[in-house]
Amino acid sequence: MPNSGVSKVLVAQGGGPTAVINQSMVGVVLEARKFQQVERVYGALYGIRGIVDQTFVDLTQETTQNLEMVAETPSSALGSTRDKPDLKYCQAIFRALKAHGIGYFFYIGGNDSADTVRIVAAEARVAGYPLRSIHIPKTIDNDLVGNDHTPGFPSAARFVAQAFMGINLDNRALPGVYLGAVMGRHAGFLTAAATIGRKFADDGPHLVYLPERAFEIDRFLSSVKATADKYGRCVVALSEGICDNQHVPIANLLASTVEKDAHGNVYLGGGPLADHLAKLVKEKLGYKRVRADTLGYLQRSFVGCVSDVDQREAREVGEKAVQFALWGDRDGSITIHRTGDYFVEYRLTPLDEVAGKTKTMPDEFIDGAGWDVTDAFRGYLRPLLGKGMSDAGRLRHSAVPKIVDQGD
Amino acid sequence: MPNSGVSKVLVAQGGGPTAVINQSMVGVVLEARKFQQVERVYGALYGIRGIVDQTFVDLTQETTQNLEMVAETPSSALGSTRDKPDLKYCQAIFRALKAHGIGYFFYIGGNDSADTVRIVAAEARVAGYPLRSIHIPKTIDNDLVGNDHTPGFPSAARFVAQAFMGINLDNRALPGVYLGAVMGRHAGFLTAAATIGRKFADDGPHLVYLPERAFEIDRFLSSVKATADKYGRCVVALSEGICDNQHVPIANLLASTVEKDAHGNVYLGGGPLADHLAKLVKEKLGYKRVRADTLGYLQRSFVGCVSDVDQREAREVGEKAVQFALWGDRDGSITIHRTGDYFVEYRLTPLDEVAGKTKTMPDEFIDGAGWDVTDAFRGYLRPLLGKGMSDAGRLRHSAVPKIVDQGD
Repeated sequence: MPNSGVSKVLVAQGGGPTAVINQSMVGVVLEARKFQQVERVYGALYGIRGIVDQTFVDLTQETTQNLEMVAETPSSALGSTRDKPDLKYCQAIFRALKAHGIGYFFYIGGNDSADTVRIVAAEARVAGYPLRSIHIPKTIDNDLVGNDHTPGFPSAARFVAQAFMGINLDNRALPGVYLGAVMGRHAGFLTAAATIGRKFADDGPHLVYLPERAFEIDRFLSSVKATADKYGRCVVALSEGICDNQHVPIANLLASTVEKDAHGNVYLGGGPLADHLAKLVKEKLGYKRVRADTLGYLQRSFVGCVSDVDQREAREVGEKAVQFALWGDRDGSITIHRTGDYFVEYRLTPLDEVAGKTKTMPDEFIDGAGWDVTDAFRGYLRPLLGKGMSDAGRLRHSAVPKIVDQGD
Repeated sequence: MPNSGVSKVLVAQGGGPTAVINQSMVGVVLEARKFQQVERVYGALYGIRGIVDQTFVDLTQETTQNLEMVAETPSSALGSTRDKPDLKYCQAIFRALKAHGIGYFFYIGGNDSADTVRIVAAEARVAGYPLRSIHIPKTIDNDLVGNDHTPGFPSAARFVAQAFMGINLDNRALPGVYLGAVMGRHAGFLTAAATIGRKFADDGPHLVYLPERAFEIDRFLSSVKATADKYGRCVVALSEGICDNQHVPIANLLASTVEKDAHGNVYLGGGPLADHLAKLVKEKLGYKRVRADTLGYLQRSFVGCVSDVDQREAREVGEKAVQFALWGDRDGSITIHRTGDYFVEYRLTPLDEVAGKTKTMPDEFIDGAGWDVTDAFRGYLRPLLGKGMSDAGRLRHSAVPKIVDQGD
């Protein structure tokens, strides 16, 4: 065993923050502090950038009380990064890890972060440096392969579900057409969550557009019209990542300038997309009250809208990561598997099975016509949302007969 | 007393929905059902439009259980309207009220709705029709004169506060410039609420722009730069209603088309405003990561982010409205007055003191420089937000000394 002696643990957080990413970090810290062979638990500030820069903090000196408070706080407490390491970057990582005697590296993030862990682990093997590298899953997009779902998604889904419950009620009081753009580059899971609060047959969102199906402007407009004709209003949930039949994001088609991150991902602001489609609805269909919102960064960081199931599981993936690394002495990615209704177990999956890959909504979750989701999806999502989901009331409306003929 | 005989009660909801507007409606219904001289309690669907159209529902037939569930549900359960009545409209209202034997009219809404009640009450007097007309306050903008604050504002403020707590944490993890646009046409109360979650000296929002102070692009850009130089990041909360020194809304200056409602109010979408300012920051200051969100309709209808103080008071204004009308036999607007820390009492204020007028942030709530709020404001807001406000944790960061010189 390469790490049989006393060694240090390093934990870092990468990619977009979530509401529960600190649960995983605290899970690593508290579990690692139990092992006698762990001399210190370090955190790197701002992800792998902090490893290269050696901006380490000693988490062994944090109180348990404060760690628990941080665990309840959304967004990466250690800071994050979107850096993607090349060979030179990795060599700098090793110099830092080696110099500080790090034997266990835990990186909490999405599929890009998993790929970073894969590269670091491979380079460690080549360099003969004794290092266990574990990727801990996190993403609100829910797009990691090999996972039933990923920590961060359930809380973001709860936010989107509650947002659209309110939006539907608002739109019912002041009828019109409403477009709400939801995060999700390639996977529509989060947008699909907008449907979970529907209770009555006329509740919105009435139309749901996912990146998994080609978006056609004409069909969109005729669907909005058909819905407005039927209900006198229309609520649309659309993914920021919707594409045309050539797989070109609609947002890119409309954007005047394109911004890319270090991973080559185009930055998708939903704002222009939703605003542009709202303008189209107004112009082509002639509706007067057409409104558009982009749910934006609130989806991943809103304070006070968290799934307790998500909190628990995010803690567990951190804890399990340490157990796999310290007892199992293997590299890998922690994956979540549903084994009961509702229960999960955690496995250590080879990094190359998860890294850089993207899971999308399976066909059985998407309604045939492509603008709604199925009961199978709702059955999948409901247990993830946790306790205390709100329920919407409605008056029973005993109509009073009219008396006067107002004429006009 | 004109209404000493048996009579009917009519309640309606006007203007933009809030998270607690149904508390006031249910407060009216449950209290009115206690009075022997009340034969029936009707609700008008879609505000005064529903009076003209006689689309009444008999709320006397609603169960108490269902009313309580509706009370907990955001957005006007009876539907709303933005109609502003002219004389002809008012005459149609009277025909309907008279035909249905309505003796008590309760209208829940903002200053435009108060003005509607004022006109209806005046026309009733002229027509010699025995009608008690009461305006029940509601607005997330908190801009009704004669009130310490208005129902709906505390819950919306709680949403904005929790949103910016999360946004600040997100921005701290992935530093950059962030602009968040908050609702508020003339009054900056809701935007100012963005500051309430600040806990550490470097917490955002670092800059707060209110409609009460002229917005100058150059000063804005230099303030963003100064903040980014100091903290390496900058979070801005700005009101959709910010104006230049000629009182022209910045949003209007940027909008290609202008949409007005029946009250002549320009529809302010914050989206183009925030997006345009973000573009300016990127171009003029050269920052790479600049993001903009518009909090949009979520602010007034989000399910599951409600102040219990707001719920209680919204219920009370409905209950008091019935008591004033049935015992006091006067028209008026229910107003909220702070009489303790924290305690309120309710008064019946003449309609013309409230109707059509707009309260804005007093000078003592705005920091001298104009881009922050004062402790006086925070002391004013805190008790309104209710129980269970979230608190943000932070690691204490015991730095580990660097070992290797990475050179690059």
